[in-house]
Amino acid sequence: MKKFKGIAASDGIAIEKAFLLAEPDLSFTKHTVNNSEDEVARLQQAVRLSKDELFTIHQRTQKDLGRHAAEVFNAHIEILSDPEFFDQVNQIISENQVNAEYALDTITNQYIEKFNSLADTYMQQRADDVRDVVKRVMSHLLGVSLNDPALANQQVIVIAHELTPSMTAQFVPEMIKGIVADLGGKTSHSAIMSRTLEIPSVVGLENIMDNVHEGDIVIVDGLTGDVIVDPEPDQVEEYRVKQAEFQKEKASLDELTSKKTLSNDGKKTLLAANISSDNDVDFAIKHGAEGVGLFRTEFLYMSTNKLPTEEEQFEIYKNVLNKMGSRPVTIRTADIGGDKPVPYLKAPKQENPFLGYRAIRLSLDREDIFRTQLRALIRASAFGNLSIMFPMIATLDELRRAKAVYEEELAKVEDEDIPHGEIKVGMMVEVPSTVVLADQFAAEVDFMSIGTNDLIQYTMAADRGNEKVANLYQPYNPSILRMIKMVADACHSNNIPVCMCGEMAGDQLAIPILFGIGLDEYSMSARQILPSRSLISTLESDKMVALANRTLSFYSTSSEVIYDVKRTLYDDYEDTYK
Amino acid sequence: MKKFKGIAASDGIAIEKAFLLAEPDLSFTKHTVNNSEDEVARLQQAVRLSKDELFTIHQRTQKDLGRHAAEVFNAHIEILSDPEFFDQVNQIISENQVNAEYALDTITNQYIEKFNSLADTYMQQRADDVRDVVKRVMSHLLGVSLNDPALANQQVIVIAHELTPSMTAQFVPEMIKGIVADLGGKTSHSAIMSRTLEIPSVVGLENIMDNVHEGDIVIVDGLTGDVIVDPEPDQVEEYRVKQAEFQKEKASLDELTSKKTLSNDGKKTLLAANISSDNDVDFAIKHGAEGVGLFRTEFLYMSTNKLPTEEEQFEIYKNVLNKMGSRPVTIRTADIGGDKPVPYLKAPKQENPFLGYRAIRLSLDREDIFRTQLRALIRASAFGNLSIMFPMIATLDELRRAKAVYEEELAKVEDEDIPHGEIKVGMMVEVPSTVVLADQFAAEVDFMSIGTNDLIQYTMAADRGNEKVANLYQPYNPSILRMIKMVADACHSNNIPVCMCGEMAGDQLAIPILFGIGLDEYSMSARQILPSRSLISTLESDKMVALANRTLSFYSTSSEVIYDVKRTLYDDYEDTYK
Repeated sequence: MKKFKGIAASDGIAIEKAFLLAEPDLSFTKHTVNNSEDEVARLQQAVRLSKDELFTIHQRTQKDLGRHAAEVFNAHIEILSDPEFFDQVNQIISENQVNAEYALDTITNQYIEKFNSLADTYMQQRADDVRDVVKRVMSHLLGVSLNDPALANQQVIVIAHELTPSMTAQFVPEMIKGIVADLGGKTSHSAIMSRTLEIPSVVGLENIMDNVHEGDIVIVDGLTGDVIVDPEPDQVEEYRVKQAEFQKEKASLDELTSKKTLSNDGKKTLLAANISSDNDVDFAIKHGAEGVGLFRTEFLYMSTNKLPTEEEQFEIYKNVLNKMGSRPVTIRTADIGGDKPVPYLKAPKQENPFLGYRAIRLSLDREDIFRTQLRALIRASAFGNLSIMFPMIATLDELRRAKAVYEEELAKVEDEDIPHGEIKVGMMVEVPSTVVLADQFAAEVDFMSIGTNDLIQYTMAADRGNEKVANLYQPYNPSILRMIKMVADACHSNNIPVCMCGEMAGDQLAIPILFGIGLDEYSMSARQILPSRSLISTLESDKMVALANRTLSFYSTSSEVIYDVKRTLYDDYEDTYK
Repeated sequence: MKKFKGIAASDGIAIEKAFLLAEPDLSFTKHTVNNSEDEVARLQQAVRLSKDELFTIHQRTQKDLGRHAAEVFNAHIEILSDPEFFDQVNQIISENQVNAEYALDTITNQYIEKFNSLADTYMQQRADDVRDVVKRVMSHLLGVSLNDPALANQQVIVIAHELTPSMTAQFVPEMIKGIVADLGGKTSHSAIMSRTLEIPSVVGLENIMDNVHEGDIVIVDGLTGDVIVDPEPDQVEEYRVKQAEFQKEKASLDELTSKKTLSNDGKKTLLAANISSDNDVDFAIKHGAEGVGLFRTEFLYMSTNKLPTEEEQFEIYKNVLNKMGSRPVTIRTADIGGDKPVPYLKAPKQENPFLGYRAIRLSLDREDIFRTQLRALIRASAFGNLSIMFPMIATLDELRRAKAVYEEELAKVEDEDIPHGEIKVGMMVEVPSTVVLADQFAAEVDFMSIGTNDLIQYTMAADRGNEKVANLYQPYNPSILRMIKMVADACHSNNIPVCMCGEMAGDQLAIPILFGIGLDEYSMSARQILPSRSLISTLESDKMVALANRTLSFYSTSSEVIYDVKRTLYDDYEDTYK
């Protein structure tokens, strides 16, 4: 028995055999060959096998995880179908009479070098793709197994040094019961993916790969971050009990799926999901979403190498609205540019992308892109309950210009007798200027949605991606809570709802204060909805208002706020269970 | 007569002969030489001549513009004294039997390439220095004049394509009556330098170099941006009148130099100067500064290649306090890091430097640097009226930690029986969180100083250095004005003064509102002090309070605010002169 401590990344308990995703040994030696035609044929065979594998993986991924996740494999197949690339490899084989591995490696390195030298994100992703797919061909040439997660045919716990998007896209969710990785933190790709798939996961274990053998029994405790390799029988027993408890609790949460969100004294709020693609809708509904509070449309622009057409966008928006039925869906116009570069737009590199040319700034500058999106949205509105919101509004001039463009497109659609639904138009509150002037803005929109991720970064002047200042990213700082209160008051004075769609909206320590401040709608990652609904069902309105008032009036630091929230929740629990 | 329109960069009128700072023709051909020793001797002679020139320029620059401006020439002399560099040049001459120009050029390019490849700001500045100084040596080798501005021996108007720091450092201010440049905007080096030297200047003329000959009479109108080459006699007459009017107005401003700052109804405020070095103090006093509201100490850290010692800092702070006598001096602890990199600290490159590791964040992380500065400040306080302020405070935790470190250093100085004066301790308000929580902060400091440059950037989420979003940098936006009001109210409730040290403090359109809001102290670039004192002398308190109230309550955009300020000022003028 060996026990390890890592970072709890996705909750739940798993007890299964280990499946090691070791880096395969793809080393080879250069040697001359007598018959170069045999080498060329060997290469063709390896390419064919790789393509077959990729077709299988592509189809399964598309079925399990959707079109978006599957796209990477299409790119891989395209590379394997590029005659120019393989002509060059074959030429080296025949001219130099060398083995296929050497020739493939030589040309691959030339390609990657060329892509990398272009200093363009899109091209560098292409380089990654080439590297990935050549690995697969090489494995067939060498007869080495890639230890493909897609090939796991029994229930396992995946043990890896680091999980790449291309690896996780291949998981068959039913087979993977747990994930354990050496690298990564709470927000790493592995962690996010395991939460999305609801697979218990522990990351940041540093050297677990050296301590597990294929087939070892492993316990993964995604609640505490414990990982036990080769456990004693009584440990297995203990964890089976823990696993059953977790599943029971989960089941009781699942009962809340189709319930309304009500506080203990009956005050109603709305819990919605943040989504990034139409593929996320089913997952959101399954987790009890009463609406979509934020559809981030930027992935439409970032996952391809050209602007999405009106028709492509229309289909996706329509799909989301259709699936959500009468439930409200808020779609945000593209927040691209800045830290979310879209290579084909060829925007210059910016010194401070967070304070730069992005979101509504780009939309108002590139009206062609903006109008196409608005038109697709207006047409899709016929199929559901649509709200549109603009990101990164900083001034009333911008809001008025954005609304004017929208009104023009609406008038055009009406002129063409194309059907549309009733649409609400709102704005994100994520730039501090709009908080301070919220009363003026609230008079000109149908709703406001507070984007805490950016608002906190600007208010604290701290890039949360910068580890040297990440400690200043403080959602519970009284300054942030006061700003939320300013926005809520401005909205309510103007009889419009106030929403929140930043990470804070799903934070169990923040919700009691936000409830006290009087937020009308919370939009969060889908898996936070049921726990939040459960938490809210225990809250008493007057106690939360009192908590919020103490926070806003008396406290000066985050730690004072956190202390009071915990004390308040604890007292409430005592009242409830005494 | 030819007339051109550019950007008015420094006010005043100049009528003088043109002095062209043309780029010299330093082209050469490679050829073999019979006697390489003659070539080596020729190179030595050129280096000697260059060094002599640089010594002269260094001494004159130090006398006219201070130690800081002169340092670049010390660096140049050091390069010319580097035996390793010239050994390599000489080796090429003797081994290849080539001319000195070719050998010098070859080695120079190697050095510059090496420096540039290091991707380090300090090293790249070294590359610029090498390029500059080699140009000088090359000019002596080729017998070509560099058209050195330092060599102008009569009063002239300098005409240049672009002015570099190394060029302007060589100006003899008495000889340069005007500056005209093809490149540059209002905040270019040429523009800032000409304002500091109070030389009329027009920049951004695009191709003036092709339209002026050495010795042509040129009129520079730094008020309108007009430049007239080879003017008609009546134009010269007209501009002589305009020049006299400008000088008369300037003289009437000069009368305000030793006056207090009083509004028309007798309300007193304080106008102080922003300085960057002890060399700026005389200029500030000459322009009527009643104090120093902001001494930016970062230049102490950025102008050398090592941390300044306590003794070096002490001497500079003491010098400033001595010169200012009983007048208040506010010294800000180092705002280094982020966009003001200090290469020898080897901080990693940041994605969003404005939202990064800098200022008090760096000071609290590198207490060694912070304590040295605080100790130097505490010791210097014995020589004047010192206030210390901390930049980029975002949370009360940071303020309390910074104050605790200060108290510890104060106690140490007292234990050692070193004399010190009474010191006020305050903070910059430039991070939005501190505005929203100003009441809590005001209770723990002796004063607050609003840094509008950063505050506006964070509040509008717009990097003003990014031309794609610079239009969002809006000092008159009602959100900014409301924030200033929040800070002023918090300070006055706590009986402490509220200052402003951003560019806005010297802005003639902002001052009426700031006065209405009730700022106690304005700190600005020295040349704005007398015009601001003159403007304030025309203001009526009750009218400005009413203006501020309208702005804060009713307006939603910058343009509404600007319109009201202009109307109010115009009405006041009417009242005054009716």
